Amino acid sequence: MSINYQTRLTALKTYLEENNIDVAMIMTPANVFYYTGFNSEPHERFMALVVDNRNQQNILFVPALDKDLASNDSIIREIIPISDGEDPYTILQENLGKGITRFGLEMKKVSMFQHQYLTAVFPEAKYEDIQPFINKQRMKKSRDEIAHTQKAIDIIEKVMEEGMKKATVGMSELELVAELEFLMKMFGAEGPSFSTIVLSGEKSALPHGIPGSRTFKNGDFLLIDMGVIITEGYCSDITRTFIIGEPTEKQKEIYDIVRRSNQAGIDAVKFGVPLKTFDMESRNLITNNGYGEYFNNRVGHGLGIEVHEEPSIHENNEQMAEKGLLFTIEPGIYIPNFGGVRIEDNVYINEAGEAEILTSFPRGLHML
Amino acid sequence: MSINYQTRLTALKTYLEENNIDVAMIMTPANVFYYTGFNSEPHERFMALVVDNRNQQNILFVPALDKDLASNDSIIREIIPISDGEDPYTILQENLGKGITRFGLEMKKVSMFQHQYLTAVFPEAKYEDIQPFINKQRMKKSRDEIAHTQKAIDIIEKVMEEGMKKATVGMSELELVAELEFLMKMFGAEGPSFSTIVLSGEKSALPHGIPGSRTFKNGDFLLIDMGVIITEGYCSDITRTFIIGEPTEKQKEIYDIVRRSNQAGIDAVKFGVPLKTFDMESRNLITNNGYGEYFNNRVGHGLGIEVHEEPSIHENNEQMAEKGLLFTIEPGIYIPNFGGVRIEDNVYINEAGEAEILTSFPRGLHML
Repeated sequence: MSINYQTRLTALKTYLEENNIDVAMIMTPANVFYYTGFNSEPHERFMALVVDNRNQQNILFVPALDKDLASNDSIIREIIPISDGEDPYTILQENLGKGITRFGLEMKKVSMFQHQYLTAVFPEAKYEDIQPFINKQRMKKSRDEIAHTQKAIDIIEKVMEEGMKKATVGMSELELVAELEFLMKMFGAEGPSFSTIVLSGEKSALPHGIPGSRTFKNGDFLLIDMGVIITEGYCSDITRTFIIGEPTEKQKEIYDIVRRSNQAGIDAVKFGVPLKTFDMESRNLITNNGYGEYFNNRVGHGLGIEVHEEPSIHENNEQMAEKGLLFTIEPGIYIPNFGGVRIEDNVYINEAGEAEILTSFPRGLHML
Repeated sequence: MSINYQTRLTALKTYLEENNIDVAMIMTPANVFYYTGFNSEPHERFMALVVDNRNQQNILFVPALDKDLASNDSIIREIIPISDGEDPYTILQENLGKGITRFGLEMKKVSMFQHQYLTAVFPEAKYEDIQPFINKQRMKKSRDEIAHTQKAIDIIEKVMEEGMKKATVGMSELELVAELEFLMKMFGAEGPSFSTIVLSGEKSALPHGIPGSRTFKNGDFLLIDMGVIITEGYCSDITRTFIIGEPTEKQKEIYDIVRRSNQAGIDAVKFGVPLKTFDMESRNLITNNGYGEYFNNRVGHGLGIEVHEEPSIHENNEQMAEKGLLFTIEPGIYIPNFGGVRIEDNVYINEAGEAEILTSFPRGLHML
């Protein structure tokens, strides 16, 4: 299981060649990692991988304080450190010189501010968006990438299993978050892949609610949405909803519909149909059971190096499902002031074009 | 201790009025929080606070799944949810209509991609950067904000104190991270304000190193850089470097220089001088002691709602220090393959224009 960064770079170079792009500048940290092996969040500092198609040179510009780390982790040999207080655009200009006419960059990443500075130092350049190509490349996961994802999933499922043993009446949401995130690290994760969501009772109806001091009570839905990122750089993302004590009939009904909706979504997954199909199949089951108004978000999103990446699985996405896609299926019913249920799994469209469900934590209603 | 969001919005409106800006659109989550009280990270979804200076109307556009949370937390009454699959730019156009000639936005936040979409729906608009105004407004902290920061600092110092009792020879960096982040939540934080840094031995020389499976050995420097964010939305950020067992003469020397450099930086803090002064005073001490080449980053950064915000305290920053600034002073010496020391404090320039050191964890070399 090792990632071949050179192969990824070569594919990018072929794309630049075919599209007559002189220079590509990649600034999204996840994309820099994808092509180089160097995984770093520079915050407001300047970091960029420059692939110069005019002379087949690659340069990695990094904050000065990351220089050693970049040398160790990256396959790029030419690393240029930029100190705080230096102007990165002047340094770019000095290294890339004149004559760039077609400049490829990530238009969703490069800000209007950065664009102005680039225009000042490369006045003759026209800017092209290379992000769609990169996203498409990243979207198709290899078996090696799935092996990393599986490791991240195995860890989070172990955390779910062990962590739920600690959940008891009277415990607060934040206390359970602390236990779960502690276990993530103990089981070998680098950390959570996003802020762990533990929501109880009526708060479980908030799809983006923030865990707080609310304590668990008998009869609560307990919604746990969490994932880890591992040192290899890949993420997992799973949701299960538990019940504390005995469920009411209505709670059972809602849970059962979401469970069947999750299954319908997963059953729809295969290559060669529009991605919207997975959302629609999952959504129809909820709508046909009368809860359509309580499911108002897309059924899933891609994951990989980032916990949210392409593709987006929503009801208007006409894009065709391809082999190699990896994404979540996570329908839910969220009833304000009552509570919510979400069941989320990670699904891969494999080499045969079929769905492989990578998550295996039981989906039945589990009482704590 | 309560934050008056309306006062903040009023200051923004006055600025728009004075600069003949028709509409301001704020998309940075931290800025949306700053003006509304609604604190949410929408990831790739669209979220924006629109302040319409033509009719004194404020609208908060949020992802559909955040609608209830936004209604609860925000002072804005008009909330427009946007479902996945809907086009946010069309919805913006429908709500803002025609006739916008001067459109204020955050040029460091708005991407080239978003700019293109905006240009398509508001073709007659000219875009103005309102980010410098917002940064300047956010940079000046009120006493209420400092009270929140102090709470975040008190928690992280308690974590440092309790957590370091657990550090022992043979423990790994990641295990200590797990303990520290567990304590953060137990002591009432929402979570870490950035990925907790625990670096030992020669790894302590990497200012942005990532904690791993390296275990603590006798004679190691142990560098801990961490902070919390609390539910009130404010951050802390502190670094201390410990020694495991007895220090060598060289370790003592380096520690002592960094400690005096930290003190020199703090001693320089007052209002009415250029911000670079604080960096230079701190840096000179290290340089004059022969270690200048091993301190290659700025001495500090602002903090508040975000753990990195303005001002940047670097040797070229001619900006004048004002009352109300809150920032870190964090000199360090990082010797490759040997180890590093950093001592980081949080300093406030108060109403009298004097430095108030908010962090109080002892700065002497502590042996574990």
